Amino acid sequence: MKTFLDCIPCFFTQALRTARTVTDDEKVIKRVLDELGTMIKDISLDSSPPETGRVVYHLISEITGERDPYQEVKKNHIDKALSLYDSLKELVKKSNDNLLTAVKFAIVGNIIDLGAVREFDIEGEINGISESEFAISDYVKFKKCLEDADDILYLGDNAGESVFDKILIEEMKKPTKYVVRDAPIINDVTYEDAVRSGIDEVAAIISSGSDAPGVVLDLCSDDFKKTFRDAKFIISKGQGNYEALSEEKYPIFFLLRAKCPVIARDLGVTVGDIVLKGVNIQ
Amino acid sequence: MKTFLDCIPCFFTQALRTARTVTDDEKVIKRVLDELGTMIKDISLDSSPPETGRVVYHLISEITGERDPYQEVKKNHIDKALSLYDSLKELVKKSNDNLLTAVKFAIVGNIIDLGAVREFDIEGEINGISESEFAISDYVKFKKCLEDADDILYLGDNAGESVFDKILIEEMKKPTKYVVRDAPIINDVTYEDAVRSGIDEVAAIISSGSDAPGVVLDLCSDDFKKTFRDAKFIISKGQGNYEALSEEKYPIFFLLRAKCPVIARDLGVTVGDIVLKGVNIQ
Repeated sequence: MKTFLDCIPCFFTQALRTARTVTDDEKVIKRVLDELGTMIKDISLDSSPPETGRVVYHLISEITGERDPYQEVKKNHIDKALSLYDSLKELVKKSNDNLLTAVKFAIVGNIIDLGAVREFDIEGEINGISESEFAISDYVKFKKCLEDADDILYLGDNAGESVFDKILIEEMKKPTKYVVRDAPIINDVTYEDAVRSGIDEVAAIISSGSDAPGVVLDLCSDDFKKTFRDAKFIISKGQGNYEALSEEKYPIFFLLRAKCPVIARDLGVTVGDIVLKGVNIQ
Repeated sequence: MKTFLDCIPCFFTQALRTARTVTDDEKVIKRVLDELGTMIKDISLDSSPPETGRVVYHLISEITGERDPYQEVKKNHIDKALSLYDSLKELVKKSNDNLLTAVKFAIVGNIIDLGAVREFDIEGEINGISESEFAISDYVKFKKCLEDADDILYLGDNAGESVFDKILIEEMKKPTKYVVRDAPIINDVTYEDAVRSGIDEVAAIISSGSDAPGVVLDLCSDDFKKTFRDAKFIISKGQGNYEALSEEKYPIFFLLRAKCPVIARDLGVTVGDIVLKGVNIQ
């Protein structure tokens, strides 16, 4: 997905929010916005939002000196999600369709997103999700492809959400590679976050080789690109990965909640909708 | 009120919205955002938002070639408000406290604001306002000062809202000078808009001498500054005028609805609250 004009004010909102997480010094925060301002003319609308997001968050780190603004927040989100793990497993077990419930929980986890949404009510979301209908659902195809798959390439999104991913991985019962960002960016899941989430107990954790907040193939390592191209069954979590991959010609199931108007419009859904969309599936 | 860091993303949102009103050409709109970006470093947080807003909207006009992006929109808002005039007058007449009801309607009119709020439901607002309580109310002082006043200086805000102002002016029954912007800016009320609203039937229309979207005294004409300094009873409508005047040492009654988090915080109220606040009143 390309960068829309609407993304530009949003980059400023994100930069402001993130800089404030790191410092109270208004002069430093203003410098972040000043520098971001001078960068706007260099943003091509043909690049995807995660490509630009990466540059924006690097800028914040450079100016504030903080490499990982959301380190503590991520830990808290993971610990919160872990505290819900047993009850979520129980709900999956009791449900009529265990896989579908696990898919829905994996999407609930996607509400933990500091890029698009600042505040969220994870317990409220869990209670509401069972009745939520997908705005786009390729669940039948998803189930069929999963049955046929030898293994799964699972593109992680945010820390905390990763615990919900673990539950889905357990339910899918296939060898899985779980893809993390190569270095901290926003609250995206890194190797360390995935381990803290217990992903190492259910999947092989691999890096995309890039710290873009979305799997932008051009920025990924050659190793990862090979793994990606060879994969027969890819699950892509969240908006950042959708933005990066929506125009690629690979078979991917996108699992996400539409959290911003631009993505909702691109998908033809409304903000808040949950989506399980398969593309290039044969 | 100074410019807050939160105002900066908001300027981008406003610039995008306004540029889109004028053109569908993404390249032109992107140029507006590019140029605004390069301006950010020159924005002093010590200036008030209307001072910066003025520069932002000038930039949009320069790049798009459209001097008055909201000309048609303003006409529609005025005509819509005029169509409600008779029923509003009837409601004022039937109410227990005619002046208070007229004050509340004048604040309802303040929802017509394309700077802070894009969409509004004016009829819904009218129905709801009678039960709305002021978050800050200096109505007793207001009434007393009005009784003592020989005349009124009334600082207008938006076109359309101006029709609601007319109703309040009629209810106050004192000689009134109604202050308009000197040239079109956002959807703020100009001389032409005030006449279309019927203000000329109830007040003398005078210009602030400036096209800032708020009465920034430093930018106003000497004539206006003299009138302002000599005034004993000043009513200031809306956010832009509040932002421009909140730190001045003159006796002013601010009538507004808090429509953005920054102003709500500055006033110590919540977004959506209605306010009648007197400052420097003896």
